Amino acid sequence: MEAVESAVSREELQLAARNHGMPLEALRYPITPAGLHYLLIHYDIPVVDSVTWRLEVGGNVRTPLALSLDDVRARPRVSLAVTLECAGNGRALLEPRPISQPWLVEAVGNAEWTGTPLRGVLEGAGVGDRSVEVLFTGLDRGVEGDVEQDFERSLPLDEAMREEVLLAYEMNGQPLPPQHGFPLRLIVPGWYGMTHVKWLKRITVLTQPFDGYQQARSYRLRRDEEEPGEPVTRMPPRSLMVPPGIPDFLTRKRFLESGPCVLSGRAWSGGGEVVRVEVSPDGGRTWSDAGLEQPLSPFGWRGWNFEWDAQPGEHELSSRATDATGASQPLEPAWNLGGYANNAAQRISVVVR
Amino acid sequence: MEAVESAVSREELQLAARNHGMPLEALRYPITPAGLHYLLIHYDIPVVDSVTWRLEVGGNVRTPLALSLDDVRARPRVSLAVTLECAGNGRALLEPRPISQPWLVEAVGNAEWTGTPLRGVLEGAGVGDRSVEVLFTGLDRGVEGDVEQDFERSLPLDEAMREEVLLAYEMNGQPLPPQHGFPLRLIVPGWYGMTHVKWLKRITVLTQPFDGYQQARSYRLRRDEEEPGEPVTRMPPRSLMVPPGIPDFLTRKRFLESGPCVLSGRAWSGGGEVVRVEVSPDGGRTWSDAGLEQPLSPFGWRGWNFEWDAQPGEHELSSRATDATGASQPLEPAWNLGGYANNAAQRISVVVR
Repeated sequence: MEAVESAVSREELQLAARNHGMPLEALRYPITPAGLHYLLIHYDIPVVDSVTWRLEVGGNVRTPLALSLDDVRARPRVSLAVTLECAGNGRALLEPRPISQPWLVEAVGNAEWTGTPLRGVLEGAGVGDRSVEVLFTGLDRGVEGDVEQDFERSLPLDEAMREEVLLAYEMNGQPLPPQHGFPLRLIVPGWYGMTHVKWLKRITVLTQPFDGYQQARSYRLRRDEEEPGEPVTRMPPRSLMVPPGIPDFLTRKRFLESGPCVLSGRAWSGGGEVVRVEVSPDGGRTWSDAGLEQPLSPFGWRGWNFEWDAQPGEHELSSRATDATGASQPLEPAWNLGGYANNAAQRISVVVR
Repeated sequence: MEAVESAVSREELQLAARNHGMPLEALRYPITPAGLHYLLIHYDIPVVDSVTWRLEVGGNVRTPLALSLDDVRARPRVSLAVTLECAGNGRALLEPRPISQPWLVEAVGNAEWTGTPLRGVLEGAGVGDRSVEVLFTGLDRGVEGDVEQDFERSLPLDEAMREEVLLAYEMNGQPLPPQHGFPLRLIVPGWYGMTHVKWLKRITVLTQPFDGYQQARSYRLRRDEEEPGEPVTRMPPRSLMVPPGIPDFLTRKRFLESGPCVLSGRAWSGGGEVVRVEVSPDGGRTWSDAGLEQPLSPFGWRGWNFEWDAQPGEHELSSRATDATGASQPLEPAWNLGGYANNAAQRISVVVR
């Protein structure tokens, strides 16, 4: 396997050592155990006293609120399996490599999130006329692009009012772990990970679009700094495969016994239901349809499997997903300055013996 | 901060993306939450059916055993806070950089492990005369150094018979997560992480020292491949600091308000109790004693804190621990081929404003 093009810096290694992807064999679990779910933390995990913590709801509302965790937990309760993926997933496979968290393909997870619909909270506060966006502010504070900031991101009002958008206080039936946003985080099914603001402290209804760092400068699809670019929003389709056989420790190359076997994996899209997964056992020359399992929820990934008669030799395996809008995975990545949304088909090298 | 010396390879990035350290702000927790504890997995996380799983105890014993998980759980139960650290912690700070999992300084955690003493199980099987070592074999299988193998490591018989060596089935009061060895792992307080074999399937009492890959070829302190080298065993002293202030996302440089503040962290050693932690606020020119908290257990890390009057400017903060044997942390690392046991003092760059 090739070296990445340019020297990885201490900075990138520091990020790679503290953040982590989901080991790909964990695609086996329909619901990702908490410690295996991918994790990207911009600044530090904040220390939160859940007794004194309050969620402020303000801005252009009729009745500003300050909700305790008990207040939030007393509201209607919804649980939903949701696939979350980092917008930078695939970044380190781009050339030249944008310098940030150097993800390969594994920045994903599918947890069951439990919380209360955001919509009810916003309706309780009373959204004022001329509102256009809702801003979500976390307790995590740091410096990025020379700007000192709380991590904060906005959503268009109509997205914020979708019934499946949650203020979540549990992950897989347990209180949120510190690293996943304790005591409360936003869950916006279908959108990339940066949207799901962790350690929420404030929700602000806006009459003008938010132009803060994480909205206007970061998370834009653009070729150079001068271009404003399109915002990064929903996840395009992606599929991943449980690496078959056993790995080499260092290269992660796979070794497999010859004969019939079942390849399997998961596929998801923020654009609509995954309607097709294809598998190529020969480096993308030929493709065949995989069988599809029922999705775990409208917003959770969909299992797939494919019978393969593994013949001795070296093979490159790939899979690609297509969603209900007809969107599919490219075989080669499309480069952009921030290294976002690279959903090119995964390639796994396997030696069959 | 400097780039690491040579280009980081795709292989190293693959390892860094699936394994992960403990974000250093998690030094705040006396007991590390499971998802924040460092994780190094040589091969894949195996799938284990805990109903059919058995622990085999054999080799030079009078009565070979096959224990179910219920059998193990029915035995005497012990809980113990134990600091675990990867033997490769600090590897990526060595020059030239040994090629393997590229850890900086954060491959550590301090969990509460619950299980039954190994000694009782070995006594139940009856250790035969002329026994010298006990071999522990995991269910994780892969290829390393061109050798296909189950992950397995041995312990000298007297180490295996220490009363605090556990067969652990819980981490922090919950069944072991898959990635930490479900259903059963070895815990050997004081020793580096590779010793604590996960996903145990077999324990074998040996009359000859084990010379398998993970004992004779890997985890040796040596300067070149020809040298047999000394085995890597116990953790030398190390201390780490909660990075003060707030971080820059990419560089992780810290920004702090001027004035009095308290620096804090944790220190541990596999050689004996930590008896001293010193802090340097000036790049190692001057050192002062930090205050020490009581250790959580004889084998858990020890909290420390240090009052610092932060003056405007850029500072390099360090800490170093000394244990009861007099062993202390060097300021510069000692290189070895595998990149093991680099316990050089941590350096944190802070801008005080």
